[in-house]
Amino acid sequence: MDRKKGIVLLSGGLDSATVIAIADQMGFATYALSFDYGQRHSGEIDAAKNIAKISRAAEHVVAKIDLRIFGNSALTSDIAVPRGRTEKEFESGIPITYVPARNTIFLSFALAWAEVLESSDIFIGVNALDYSGYPDCRPEFIKSFQEMANLATKASVEGKTKITIHAPLLNMTKAQIIKKGLELGVDYSKTLTCYDPDENNFSCGTCDSCILRLKGFRENGISDPIRYK
Amino acid sequence: MDRKKGIVLLSGGLDSATVIAIADQMGFATYALSFDYGQRHSGEIDAAKNIAKISRAAEHVVAKIDLRIFGNSALTSDIAVPRGRTEKEFESGIPITYVPARNTIFLSFALAWAEVLESSDIFIGVNALDYSGYPDCRPEFIKSFQEMANLATKASVEGKTKITIHAPLLNMTKAQIIKKGLELGVDYSKTLTCYDPDENNFSCGTCDSCILRLKGFRENGISDPIRYK
Repeated sequence: MDRKKGIVLLSGGLDSATVIAIADQMGFATYALSFDYGQRHSGEIDAAKNIAKISRAAEHVVAKIDLRIFGNSALTSDIAVPRGRTEKEFESGIPITYVPARNTIFLSFALAWAEVLESSDIFIGVNALDYSGYPDCRPEFIKSFQEMANLATKASVEGKTKITIHAPLLNMTKAQIIKKGLELGVDYSKTLTCYDPDENNFSCGTCDSCILRLKGFRENGISDPIRYK
Repeated sequence: MDRKKGIVLLSGGLDSATVIAIADQMGFATYALSFDYGQRHSGEIDAAKNIAKISRAAEHVVAKIDLRIFGNSALTSDIAVPRGRTEKEFESGIPITYVPARNTIFLSFALAWAEVLESSDIFIGVNALDYSGYPDCRPEFIKSFQEMANLATKASVEGKTKITIHAPLLNMTKAQIIKKGLELGVDYSKTLTCYDPDENNFSCGTCDSCILRLKGFRENGISDPIRYK
């Protein structure tokens, strides 16, 4: 029997690399979707291509959309990425690395592809524990998007499919995510998490994303296989 | 006092030209957003530029996104546009001109821009009476998108703004829309509605979109100012 099709949002980072392994283990044929959206850390697109390949994704599409037309995020404009923030600072509000409505846009594209493939399952690696407080990573957002998605498509109107947004990492710490991924054989040396890597794709080690990642490996008592400056 | 900012999805067609006039009349400074999404009727982008200009939009952005990567619609792939459908056929299901999740994607981009501009108002010209039965033109979809939007953004989490999705044409017939637009001084000769115009941007007169448009003018007892083949 053919495997069910699942769309997986694949950024090239640690979380989404774990999610595609989880979707595969759940028995889905994975259709990976990445975005070239004008991010400064565009090296993550190469990472996503590598991960899609080694994860045996049935297909990998990189959608080109330009979120720089709106600007206003450290990831898409000339605003500096914050460095060396403490745990207290993590809790002090949404940082400037937040990209307005990014997950809403990414999930909308995933929904379009799901409809074309007649898939009813979309996977996203959002995480609401060790995260930067982004609004579109919270469980209430994911739940609400799913409700909207089930009113948005032809298949939903015709009663054929019911879209499920899977967010398997939602309630996991970064350490738990890494542990799960290692069990599933994820090769984290192929992932790129840093918001602002150098020209050799060496990670900075001081942005929020690096801080959370390094903490996760430390808590597992192992070293991170990627290269830092 | 500065006028409130309103994002207006502007396709270049009759409906969105009416909506931008309504938003302007309501007192909004209008920020028009159009999409170059690989549609076969790309002449509508030029129409949108013209309309934004004569409507005194504060700004007009054309976002380039390629929906052809997913295909599966007569508007974005080599599938033929249906011709000369009867009213009975209009009621028989969702036609092949439906673009998967298009309004979800368009509204997501509008949401991103609204967040950057600190606007809480988004306008869309969907219409659930004289329409083609698209799922993402129905009131329940619009309502659900609005709920999701209010969980998706930084401003919503911080309790600063509450997003409203305005769909002023939702319960109007095409004839009522045209009547309203004429009262507001909309120049319909600048709009392009046809799904498949020729190389001179002459409309076909037989696609669903043309059929509904012509009916609307006929019911107002006036002739449509655009050119047909």
